Amino acid sequence: MHVGFKERLGHIIFETDTPAARAFDVALLWAIVVSVLLVVLESVASVRARYGELLRTLEWGFTVLFTLEYALRVYAARRRLGYVRSFYGVVDLLAVVPTYLTLVLAGTQYFVVLRSLRLLRVFRVFKLSRYLGEAGVLATALRASREKIIVFLTAVLSVVLIIGATMYLVEGPAHGFDSIPVAIYWAIVTLTTVGYGDISPVTPFGKALAAVVMILGYGIIAVPTGIVTTELTRAGFGGPPRVHRPCPSCGTETHEADATHCRRCGTTL
Amino acid sequence: MHVGFKERLGHIIFETDTPAARAFDVALLWAIVVSVLLVVLESVASVRARYGELLRTLEWGFTVLFTLEYALRVYAARRRLGYVRSFYGVVDLLAVVPTYLTLVLAGTQYFVVLRSLRLLRVFRVFKLSRYLGEAGVLATALRASREKIIVFLTAVLSVVLIIGATMYLVEGPAHGFDSIPVAIYWAIVTLTTVGYGDISPVTPFGKALAAVVMILGYGIIAVPTGIVTTELTRAGFGGPPRVHRPCPSCGTETHEADATHCRRCGTTL
Amino acid sequence: MHVGFKERLGHIIFETDTPAARAFDVALLWAIVVSVLLVVLESVASVRARYGELLRTLEWGFTVLFTLEYALRVYAARRRLGYVRSFYGVVDLLAVVPTYLTLVLAGTQYFVVLRSLRLLRVFRVFKLSRYLGEAGVLATALRASREKIIVFLTAVLSVVLIIGATMYLVEGPAHGFDSIPVAIYWAIVTLTTVGYGDISPVTPFGKALAAVVMILGYGIIAVPTGIVTTELTRAGFGGPPRVHRPCPSCGTETHEADATHCRRCGTTL
Amino acid sequence: MHVGFKERLGHIIFETDTPAARAFDVALLWAIVVSVLLVVLESVASVRARYGELLRTLEWGFTVLFTLEYALRVYAARRRLGYVRSFYGVVDLLAVVPTYLTLVLAGTQYFVVLRSLRLLRVFRVFKLSRYLGEAGVLATALRASREKIIVFLTAVLSVVLIIGATMYLVEGPAHGFDSIPVAIYWAIVTLTTVGYGDISPVTPFGKALAAVVMILGYGIIAVPTGIVTTELTRAGFGGPPRVHRPCPSCGTETHEADATHCRRCGTTL
Repeated sequence: MHVGFKERLGHIIFETDTPAARAFDVALLWAIVVSVLLVVLESVASVRARYGELLRTLEWGFTVLFTLEYALRVYAARRRLGYVRSFYGVVDLLAVVPTYLTLVLAGTQYFVVLRSLRLLRVFRVFKLSRYLGEAGVLATALRASREKIIVFLTAVLSVVLIIGATMYLVEGPAHGFDSIPVAIYWAIVTLTTVGYGDISPVTPFGKALAAVVMILGYGIIAVPTGIVTTELTRAGFGGPPRVHRPCPSCGTETHEADATHCRRCGTTL
Repeated sequence: MHVGFKERLGHIIFETDTPAARAFDVALLWAIVVSVLLVVLESVASVRARYGELLRTLEWGFTVLFTLEYALRVYAARRRLGYVRSFYGVVDLLAVVPTYLTLVLAGTQYFVVLRSLRLLRVFRVFKLSRYLGEAGVLATALRASREKIIVFLTAVLSVVLIIGATMYLVEGPAHGFDSIPVAIYWAIVTLTTVGYGDISPVTPFGKALAAVVMILGYGIIAVPTGIVTTELTRAGFGGPPRVHRPCPSCGTETHEADATHCRRCGTTL
Repeated sequence: MHVGFKERLGHIIFETDTPAARAFDVALLWAIVVSVLLVVLESVASVRARYGELLRTLEWGFTVLFTLEYALRVYAARRRLGYVRSFYGVVDLLAVVPTYLTLVLAGTQYFVVLRSLRLLRVFRVFKLSRYLGEAGVLATALRASREKIIVFLTAVLSVVLIIGATMYLVEGPAHGFDSIPVAIYWAIVTLTTVGYGDISPVTPFGKALAAVVMILGYGIIAVPTGIVTTELTRAGFGGPPRVHRPCPSCGTETHEADATHCRRCGTTL
Repeated sequence: MHVGFKERLGHIIFETDTPAARAFDVALLWAIVVSVLLVVLESVASVRARYGELLRTLEWGFTVLFTLEYALRVYAARRRLGYVRSFYGVVDLLAVVPTYLTLVLAGTQYFVVLRSLRLLRVFRVFKLSRYLGEAGVLATALRASREKIIVFLTAVLSVVLIIGATMYLVEGPAHGFDSIPVAIYWAIVTLTTVGYGDISPVTPFGKALAAVVMILGYGIIAVPTGIVTTELTRAGFGGPPRVHRPCPSCGTETHEADATHCRRCGTTL
């Protein structure tokens, strides 16, 4: 029966609880890893010189395969538009588009590394759902930090702009600070403690300023770590203070580990 | 009526709750962003060569506009001296002064990047007051850490001075450690883990010392992160896990901010 | 009696509570430290030129000694296979194998630095068992973080792959970004804030991208610190603020480790 | 009366609660700062060329002054040996010795920067005793972390040794990894994320190894931050969980903020 086929197909593609579905996901996982590795290897000049033709052929093979898979997913999805618009739907499409674009524009094939995002999906193959749970806690913590991070970034960008303009005036193009944008780049390299050294202050006054920037900057840049740590603690990453103990009366799900009454309705837990 | 005009003007300039006031703030926001971008672009040699004249004309246009706005703010402010002396009053003045100074002194136009500080004000346009709330929590946390940071900085400066003098003796001018101030600059670059590499130890003993400095230094520099994290937690950054709200019945002192019942005895708070 | 000899030998080798056993462990500690130092020194060209013969002779002496010791350990161990397969058994073997391999393959002698892992064992000589307790807490904290770290590393590797491919396209081989693997190396050097500067962006667009990577990356890389801190707190690293010891009277579950009375009702614990 | 003079002198020198004692401490503070600055300036070649004679004369003046002060301190101290052996007694002596050593050995004058440690004493002049209180909390936190830090450093040194030996074999003297000690220096520069770039891997395999080291290393190096943060929290740096509320019965000084009974004797607080 046709409907039956579509449903069975959807089960194999979207679920992982039958041997067939599992085999499909494992095969997909390896196909993704291998195809990404091929593209990474193709970028190495010596490899490209010797195996370029082979790599491109394989690349097209994988792309046709993934295109077919994408078509099947759209076909078998219960809510087609829902799938196409979902995060995974968009990633699945982005995983094949770059290769087709090479017909028009050279170099786009390297964007197939976006395929690596598909690996996030096949995590569940190995019953790694608990990892995704952890990822969820991480994501919650990061989302909760979002506003603090926006405030923080705005402040940092203002500081970086002012430091950059000052260093541009102090050091000038003669010492590599060619323009304010370049000086801003230097300020970010310094504040994040990356410190390439491609541009560094030369004049005594510039060095003194840079030293102040580093020390102040270190304090500034300690803030994200503090924010993330605090949010992780709060999101229950550190286990207690909150545990999952639903209130029998009102259903509030989490309570502090040593609570004896629901903090919402006062019912004894 | 004249007084009515002044009051209406003050409302448009200082508030954000009417369409006119809102439109004023949005226009101001864009004017600030564009004018700062112009100055940043002007510092790029190739852009200055082609569009220098245009950029300087626009720059003067914005400066006249902002000067007019500053005059209106002073005129419309309820307590004029209060505004002029306030943080925002000073920033508004600093946002126009650099351009006028270019008539006397070349290069000062780049200080108009101070205008970016004005962006802090227009945050509220987009109902971002809660962001400012977050900023307030951050500021509280940093202020509470102030004393600890002063003690910490004094200790670090002493350490940096002693390390600098030692490295100056060990490596000397032949390897880039030209003087104690330069060696102190190197010590700060190393302790903050920026590590430009413009100066780095060459002798075996210097390298051994530098390795000790890095490891010890890493411990030292971990302290600000610890301080900020602890203060953020304490300032309630981790959300409202616990606030001081004693239970009227059993006296348990701290509860989660959104609790309505004591978590010990169930009494309504 | 033969069995008695084996048992006495096992006691001297594996325990530390008699003067003989203690002397054995202290001698072993020094032998390990000296033999590792010899190998490290041998790698210095000027030292090798002058003392190469002597160093190699001593090295062989130590290796024979350690081989003998390993044989004795296997002989005296209660459960021989258990010892051979244990972490310390493997390390003891790895500590002698590299020297014998030099007969076949040059350069392998440098792997005798693996001997330094043996130092972990002789910690207990100086009643440093509490240090091992601390190490245990650390290990527990790190093990508890394992899943979070795997999720985190997978996400970071995907990000690094995409950043690397983008920078390879933007900067290209002309500016040192020779291939995607090299660009990935650059991305890791930048994200971890190491920043050697052996490869750094040259084009304005590349610098802008790098600046975004650094700022985003700084946030990403703040996560491990947050995870470790949270897990350390949870593993009771902050000393024993609270342990699970329910009060027999009121049932309060956690108390400070050194508490003798319930902090809620005063009942003796 | 002679004893009266000695006592008055001791009061001026060691206390800060009379105008004379305060004036003495403020004068001392400035003398220290100025004399350290003189030595720092003397190390700058251009300054030394012009003002060398003057700087050395002033330096000798300050040294004679500080020697006199040291003699007076020894004379006026209640327990002379106690003062001479105390931390401050040793620092006071070290502050004058380097200048006298220049009569025998050139270059030692730069060690007078040890004088900066004397600044720690005059903190109290400005009623900064609370800063010292903060420093005390910091010191307590660091002392409590000591054992953990020793375990951590031993582990790090073993790791660094093994990484160094491996990189020495992989990259070798041709790429700057001249010997295992140099490779260890590189490993420390990389693990602490300083990253000078004076030595960096060149071969593909070396770069891959370095990338693994950076990522693993970042996790390792996140540990000190976690340790310090946890200890700071525990030392009461973040305020609660412990507050100062002495037990009326047994005198235990600090209790958790929400404790209702002494955790030592059970008395109601």
